[in-house]
Amino acid sequence: MKQRGNPQLNSHGELVHLLSIEGLPKATLLHILDTASNFVSVNDREVKKVPLLRGKSVFNLFFENSTRTRTTFEIAATRLSADVINLDVAKSSASKGESLLDTIANLSAMAADLFVVRHGESGAPYLIAQHVAPHVHVVNAGDGRHAHPTQALLDMYTIRHYKGDWANLTVAIVGDVLHSRVARSDIHALTTLGCAEVRVVGPKTLVPADMAQMGVRVMHDMHEGIKDCDVIIMLRLQSERMSGALLPSAQEFFMSYGLTPAKLQAAKPNAIVMHPGPINRGVEIDSAVVDGQQSVILPQVSFGIAVRMAVMGIVAGNQA
Amino acid sequence: MKQRGNPQLNSHGELVHLLSIEGLPKATLLHILDTASNFVSVNDREVKKVPLLRGKSVFNLFFENSTRTRTTFEIAATRLSADVINLDVAKSSASKGESLLDTIANLSAMAADLFVVRHGESGAPYLIAQHVAPHVHVVNAGDGRHAHPTQALLDMYTIRHYKGDWANLTVAIVGDVLHSRVARSDIHALTTLGCAEVRVVGPKTLVPADMAQMGVRVMHDMHEGIKDCDVIIMLRLQSERMSGALLPSAQEFFMSYGLTPAKLQAAKPNAIVMHPGPINRGVEIDSAVVDGQQSVILPQVSFGIAVRMAVMGIVAGNQA
Amino acid sequence: MKQRGNPQLNSHGELVHLLSIEGLPKATLLHILDTASNFVSVNDREVKKVPLLRGKSVFNLFFENSTRTRTTFEIAATRLSADVINLDVAKSSASKGESLLDTIANLSAMAADLFVVRHGESGAPYLIAQHVAPHVHVVNAGDGRHAHPTQALLDMYTIRHYKGDWANLTVAIVGDVLHSRVARSDIHALTTLGCAEVRVVGPKTLVPADMAQMGVRVMHDMHEGIKDCDVIIMLRLQSERMSGALLPSAQEFFMSYGLTPAKLQAAKPNAIVMHPGPINRGVEIDSAVVDGQQSVILPQVSFGIAVRMAVMGIVAGNQA
Repeated sequence: MKQRGNPQLNSHGELVHLLSIEGLPKATLLHILDTASNFVSVNDREVKKVPLLRGKSVFNLFFENSTRTRTTFEIAATRLSADVINLDVAKSSASKGESLLDTIANLSAMAADLFVVRHGESGAPYLIAQHVAPHVHVVNAGDGRHAHPTQALLDMYTIRHYKGDWANLTVAIVGDVLHSRVARSDIHALTTLGCAEVRVVGPKTLVPADMAQMGVRVMHDMHEGIKDCDVIIMLRLQSERMSGALLPSAQEFFMSYGLTPAKLQAAKPNAIVMHPGPINRGVEIDSAVVDGQQSVILPQVSFGIAVRMAVMGIVAGNQA
Repeated sequence: MKQRGNPQLNSHGELVHLLSIEGLPKATLLHILDTASNFVSVNDREVKKVPLLRGKSVFNLFFENSTRTRTTFEIAATRLSADVINLDVAKSSASKGESLLDTIANLSAMAADLFVVRHGESGAPYLIAQHVAPHVHVVNAGDGRHAHPTQALLDMYTIRHYKGDWANLTVAIVGDVLHSRVARSDIHALTTLGCAEVRVVGPKTLVPADMAQMGVRVMHDMHEGIKDCDVIIMLRLQSERMSGALLPSAQEFFMSYGLTPAKLQAAKPNAIVMHPGPINRGVEIDSAVVDGQQSVILPQVSFGIAVRMAVMGIVAGNQA
Repeated sequence: MKQRGNPQLNSHGELVHLLSIEGLPKATLLHILDTASNFVSVNDREVKKVPLLRGKSVFNLFFENSTRTRTTFEIAATRLSADVINLDVAKSSASKGESLLDTIANLSAMAADLFVVRHGESGAPYLIAQHVAPHVHVVNAGDGRHAHPTQALLDMYTIRHYKGDWANLTVAIVGDVLHSRVARSDIHALTTLGCAEVRVVGPKTLVPADMAQMGVRVMHDMHEGIKDCDVIIMLRLQSERMSGALLPSAQEFFMSYGLTPAKLQAAKPNAIVMHPGPINRGVEIDSAVVDGQQSVILPQVSFGIAVRMAVMGIVAGNQA
């Protein structure tokens, strides 16, 4: 039986779906990160495979196209020895007028074990999780502006790997925080894990003052926002925002909030720079920073495989 | 050597291709269903895999897009441990002016073992089967308006599972029977298996009187058609028929032939309701029936995996 | 450390990438062909698999669509027991403004072992090979008009299989030699392997006189070009060339350079006819020749799987 209001956990408090960081206990987040550290070494082996999900069927259900994220889940599932079925759902029955829940019911009847769901609508993975059988698991691979929990987990893994415990850290999240599911999930993860100070930095249109309700410090000046930080998480600037009223030109944005080597000097000397990718070089971040010594953008990608292996391995081992 | 006029069977009467239900002996159909019942349990296991087709290459050749059917064959082949190659043929060499038979000859030269073929033209799988090497097998996944034999086999499996032998059953197939390859294959299967009475029910434009030549009872009144039935197979209404002269509006069709709880009362109390999917809720069938106790639509999907495993396992074991 | 000017070989002279036939020693080519002959038998087995690349991740990176070539690499990698990820790169991050090298860096961070790259720009696989980590390997699956080395290797395998050593052979390459990466790679392979005489045959617009600098005999008369040949390699005529000034109509081209049974009589009686596919029947080659006794076009396809298995197996075993 599921806990009221927490559809991600079963009655023993075990993770059965990963839908959102919000509402997950600190112990659950740490358990995922600890499990992931075992899988990091698997990805460095000659034979990059463990038999944990052998004979299980993982369905990649991408209602919104994202080759990169789909690929990371496909690789993670394959390295757990699962059978992976990629479904480009936009092209399939959905277009024949079938409802989301009918599609899920049909795939479940094919004896699916795990759905990885990317959807343009916030909450779609929750809806799915509410309707699957007890042995079927759902992992949110990004839903609307709501959440991107595996990205937040790999960000937390990266921070702990380079900086140790969050209790002594100041972390700045910079850019279009308002529309970012990555930012939202990162904020929940950082506050849950006891991060000393979480700053959100950007123009007032993209970082409104009421975001302070999430337990973060809202800042609009880039120099002040970065100052003495241990970790800087740059967000991707969606080009479709550019043409609207929310933003000046890409050039002006880069002048004010683009991370350059000069601006980076305000942070602690050993601060790390992160980015969820794909990068817009010269828009939100300067190439010299991307390729510089403080960048941990590529290690984030590597840790992302291990974190997704951990999440899939953990949920598949628990019953709703 | 193949029997004259029966390209699906070798000289020992063994199944080497599955192209159509028409012309297959009752014993062959029963052998497939009996084999499938062994595979149903595989799909409920922790490790849903048997090594029957390990190291074999299965090509999904979909000249007509159907994500759902392709997925069922991909899952079935994967659970038999085959290597599956999905070919979106519309996009490939076919568009470079290569002929169907040249495409097949090339893929055969790559040491293919089994082709699963969906094609918009009736007879395409036959043409392919006539030209492949003796060790290569062809399974028809739907060709034009002609046949959809694995759908018919999973329908037969479902009927036997819930109702036992066909000899005592009355089965109604309802809707656009004329254009349906599912209906055509179901009719051949039911008559071969000795079904007591097969009714086809729909408007005169979609169920012409000369269909009686197939050994079925042609009926145009829904209440009469369903009355005292054991099994009702609802067909998907192709929306493209709607705009033509063959049909009134979707609303009028639903009034006359859409299966509602009220109409269903004419059938036997324990009658089962089937549908090949994807469902148009409110067009050919009411949501209350889809989700009701007599619906076996989702079990059909589950049995479909086992039936496709059985078909691929059987043909791959026989030589032309 | 890589040899200066030869990015395909490590300091021990071992193959770490396959980018081009040009610059590879004869011994390397022969090693690939000898290895391939072991894999030919694997493709005839019941279980068509060897564990050579088990647990390795092979990425098919097709920036230019080619279902046929992608399929041959997918099959080859699967039969080596690798995990294969197909990336339709045109649709993915590339379209989000990410650079080629950022895409590669990201995929490398996912612990890729081998990239199979098809790209419309000549030199793209070289660029990639220069930037990957020492344990990552690149195989060129065709770049612009530059090279198609695995096609050349399978052509060499086919020639040796039917005709023995190249030292006694006359080989004619016929058609649009100028724009063909297959022709370019075949010429390098044949001259490296010591072929007695390599002829290139076609109209002056498609076989300019200065091609003689590549060590071949330039000929414009089809009868003279084919006369007494042991091997005839017909090239696919790209239909897009037809509308330009380079060529007369398809009919006129076929009259002059299309290979018919009559023209083929000028070659040695046991000459073999090859074609990289897909074939345009009646454009560059007559159907009677394609399907005739001297055609080895389908064996080329079969050997292609074994040759690609050999290339991937060899490079994956060496460190840059």
